[in-house]
Amino acid sequence: MIKFVEHILKNFLESPRFQNFITFIIILNSILIGLETYPEMMKEYEPIIDTFDMVILVCFTIEIALKIFIFRRKFFTNGWDVFDFFVIGISILPAAGSFSIFRALRIIRTLRLLKSLPKLRLIIESLLHSLPSIGWIVVLLTIVYYIYAVVGYNLFAPLYPEYFGSLHKAFFTLFQIMTLESWSSAIARPIMDGVPYSAVYFVTFILIATYTTLNVFIAIVVNTMNQLALKGMHEEEEQMKQFMAAQHKVLNQKLDKLQKEVTSLKENQ
Amino acid sequence: MIKFVEHILKNFLESPRFQNFITFIIILNSILIGLETYPEMMKEYEPIIDTFDMVILVCFTIEIALKIFIFRRKFFTNGWDVFDFFVIGISILPAAGSFSIFRALRIIRTLRLLKSLPKLRLIIESLLHSLPSIGWIVVLLTIVYYIYAVVGYNLFAPLYPEYFGSLHKAFFTLFQIMTLESWSSAIARPIMDGVPYSAVYFVTFILIATYTTLNVFIAIVVNTMNQLALKGMHEEEEQMKQFMAAQHKVLNQKLDKLQKEVTSLKENQ
Amino acid sequence: MIKFVEHILKNFLESPRFQNFITFIIILNSILIGLETYPEMMKEYEPIIDTFDMVILVCFTIEIALKIFIFRRKFFTNGWDVFDFFVIGISILPAAGSFSIFRALRIIRTLRLLKSLPKLRLIIESLLHSLPSIGWIVVLLTIVYYIYAVVGYNLFAPLYPEYFGSLHKAFFTLFQIMTLESWSSAIARPIMDGVPYSAVYFVTFILIATYTTLNVFIAIVVNTMNQLALKGMHEEEEQMKQFMAAQHKVLNQKLDKLQKEVTSLKENQ
Amino acid sequence: MIKFVEHILKNFLESPRFQNFITFIIILNSILIGLETYPEMMKEYEPIIDTFDMVILVCFTIEIALKIFIFRRKFFTNGWDVFDFFVIGISILPAAGSFSIFRALRIIRTLRLLKSLPKLRLIIESLLHSLPSIGWIVVLLTIVYYIYAVVGYNLFAPLYPEYFGSLHKAFFTLFQIMTLESWSSAIARPIMDGVPYSAVYFVTFILIATYTTLNVFIAIVVNTMNQLALKGMHEEEEQMKQFMAAQHKVLNQKLDKLQKEVTSLKENQ
Repeated sequence: MIKFVEHILKNFLESPRFQNFITFIIILNSILIGLETYPEMMKEYEPIIDTFDMVILVCFTIEIALKIFIFRRKFFTNGWDVFDFFVIGISILPAAGSFSIFRALRIIRTLRLLKSLPKLRLIIESLLHSLPSIGWIVVLLTIVYYIYAVVGYNLFAPLYPEYFGSLHKAFFTLFQIMTLESWSSAIARPIMDGVPYSAVYFVTFILIATYTTLNVFIAIVVNTMNQLALKGMHEEEEQMKQFMAAQHKVLNQKLDKLQKEVTSLKENQ
Repeated sequence: MIKFVEHILKNFLESPRFQNFITFIIILNSILIGLETYPEMMKEYEPIIDTFDMVILVCFTIEIALKIFIFRRKFFTNGWDVFDFFVIGISILPAAGSFSIFRALRIIRTLRLLKSLPKLRLIIESLLHSLPSIGWIVVLLTIVYYIYAVVGYNLFAPLYPEYFGSLHKAFFTLFQIMTLESWSSAIARPIMDGVPYSAVYFVTFILIATYTTLNVFIAIVVNTMNQLALKGMHEEEEQMKQFMAAQHKVLNQKLDKLQKEVTSLKENQ
Repeated sequence: MIKFVEHILKNFLESPRFQNFITFIIILNSILIGLETYPEMMKEYEPIIDTFDMVILVCFTIEIALKIFIFRRKFFTNGWDVFDFFVIGISILPAAGSFSIFRALRIIRTLRLLKSLPKLRLIIESLLHSLPSIGWIVVLLTIVYYIYAVVGYNLFAPLYPEYFGSLHKAFFTLFQIMTLESWSSAIARPIMDGVPYSAVYFVTFILIATYTTLNVFIAIVVNTMNQLALKGMHEEEEQMKQFMAAQHKVLNQKLDKLQKEVTSLKENQ
Repeated sequence: MIKFVEHILKNFLESPRFQNFITFIIILNSILIGLETYPEMMKEYEPIIDTFDMVILVCFTIEIALKIFIFRRKFFTNGWDVFDFFVIGISILPAAGSFSIFRALRIIRTLRLLKSLPKLRLIIESLLHSLPSIGWIVVLLTIVYYIYAVVGYNLFAPLYPEYFGSLHKAFFTLFQIMTLESWSSAIARPIMDGVPYSAVYFVTFILIATYTTLNVFIAIVVNTMNQLALKGMHEEEEQMKQFMAAQHKVLNQKLDKLQKEVTSLKENQ
């Protein structure tokens, strides 16, 4: 009996109609949360929006509860389902409080769209797929950042506490410099007035950081292209082999026929 | 009789001489509109320029009217003709009023050059061609923007209304941050003074937005290169097959000759 | 007799030793011009530096005069020689006056290094080589710039003369916006206060300009890679053909031998 | 006897366990140096941290002394060992003084991680590997920088000493312009007020500098991709040859058998 209910529920949860319904209420929910940013909207329709919001949250919670009920442990082996679980988990928290920070967190329900729309899921998976190829370059960048942050703290902390007053601030400042934002007019030039030769510090950091980041980019391009090129080559090779085999089949048949006749010639001799 | 007139008109409209004439008056028109930005010019020659402008607009209108008269419904199936139709349609409006905003709109007639010059038409078509491959990444970016805009509004709206005072302002601010323009010196650093830990908001947004944009770029490069590489491979494969077939033809002929002689040997036996 | 002198001169001008000497004095000249930027240097050694400078200029002039004397019209068919001719021609002008603008022009003699060092010449030639593939994209960008400049002038000129006061200023401002430098904090935000909805103007320009520039870049990458890939493919194809021909040669020889024996069999029958 | 000791020492130094120990103390040392940036930490634990620091430095010194003792001259032929030698050499200096600049230098010991972690060593080697292909483009950029620096000094030095007051300042300013940081709002626009037509100077520099840098990038991408593509092609070619050879082997065997029978036919005739 329970088996049967489970079977029906599973079919229902996986039916395209239900999937589309979920996608629809995710979008609806996102729009409602967006509408809340218009104060005049909020004054009039706050109760309605809040009710809707609650209903949608209940829908989400029931959906995920049913899924866990049906798939049990298997539920937690699927990366996208675990992702859903956390997104909804974090979304329930805000329902409790009314602090703006909690309200803001509800918007991450929109992230469920990444799972609902198959094309987006594909893109996310391919984006995550190319992460490993840049993993060690990130380690390298971290070392570069760490060294420059400590050196920056030791050299510039007393004079320019705003930019290098602590290791955290130095890290943020270095990130800003890597994005090249106001690195010279706001940071390097004032510091160069106080600490001569500090230009070396900034210029070498920019050269190293951008050259390394460039290689992150190159790693991804080369990786993606290479896979595609190899795939194309293998297909071409396969076609060439088939073409060649077909041609050789003719030669083989002719040789076989010839062989048969020569053998019969010999026997009749 | 009408058929005959239509035939002559069609030949005339499609003749290179007429096409070049249209291209010429588009460029002339663009230059005239540019000249209007020089006040001393306008004082002396305004009547002449305005007359010219009117004449050119009449030319354009007659051209497009003739085209619609000849091609009728087929006219609206050609993307570039519809483009022309709208460009001239919008250009007629300004002729009515004398508001600067309307005058400014006349310059979009210059866009007709994109259709007149075949090379430009090709580039535009290839630019539009690579748009679909980035379509879903744009959807992804929109979701990221939306989430960050709502979170930004909820966190920073009361303190920094200039940057996050409404959803529209937040969107514009996020676009500015994505272009890395003054993101830290003008936006992130002042906000970090009021809202601690907001660095997380800005740094994660920059990393996600630039990494995703990077993948837009990679998608286009890989797409374009792959098409070219596959085309090159197919050509090479074709050549290899022809070469192989030519070589095997010799082998086949020799085998056929051999077969014939062996058969005659057997018959004579 | 003149023929003989010409022959000796030609060998001399084209000898590696003379080429290296010219490269050496180009570098020496560049360093001297650089030294002039140090005022304390100038005070003491100005006469010496000026003498050196004059001697070097005489050397250059004699070299180019000899070349024209020997190669005559052929001299002006070689792009690099014409380049040399203009660089030295412009360098002689400053010798006349003592205005700083003229003195500054002497530094372009350093550009002769681009011709003297073969590796640099190669790079320059390959850089120029990839220009045609971006030619029409530059035309497209020019049209986009022109339209936005005229629209910008008409909309913003009275309120923001500093940025859009004339067509020239608008062009410069658009170039600045394309480089994303202070486009929002210094230009777009102040203008948005006066002209609502002008965000559309700036955001669309940035999207179009960067997307088009991106395609300049892609055009070059794809062009370069494609040439290399095709070259690699042709080499591979050539090797495959040779390998195949060698293998078929064996088959042919065996068939020929067989044919000969069968024919003799038939004759002996 | 000494031989024996050397042998044991060598095995010990190259054992994974010792390598991991060295990696561990490098990381520990880096963290300790990082902790020193927290003043409240320093107040309480300075003696302990300093002791640790000294112990680690002694470890490093002994390790490198042993290595030199064992490998002698061969030690200085390995690039990474020489790198280690200099890193530790520079690290010993700070132990002498207590100036902040010396303390800061200790952090470069962290660079030893680049050698200790094999993956990082690989990345560094590949980064250095692609440097030669951009060497001459760097020479070209240097020439461009030099010419623009001298011209900039001559034109703008008296009016804008902050940006072009000396050749060094001009170089730094040009680097800032190349990174597009505040090039217009802080540098070009103020200068254009004083020196008309100086826009030409800035715009041409940006176009040349970014176009050349772009080619640095393209050189690396094309280089890396080409190597991979050629490798892929050679593998494919090898497989095709093997496939073809296998197919031809069958044809050869059949022909050989046929030949044998025809020969026996002829002999029996």
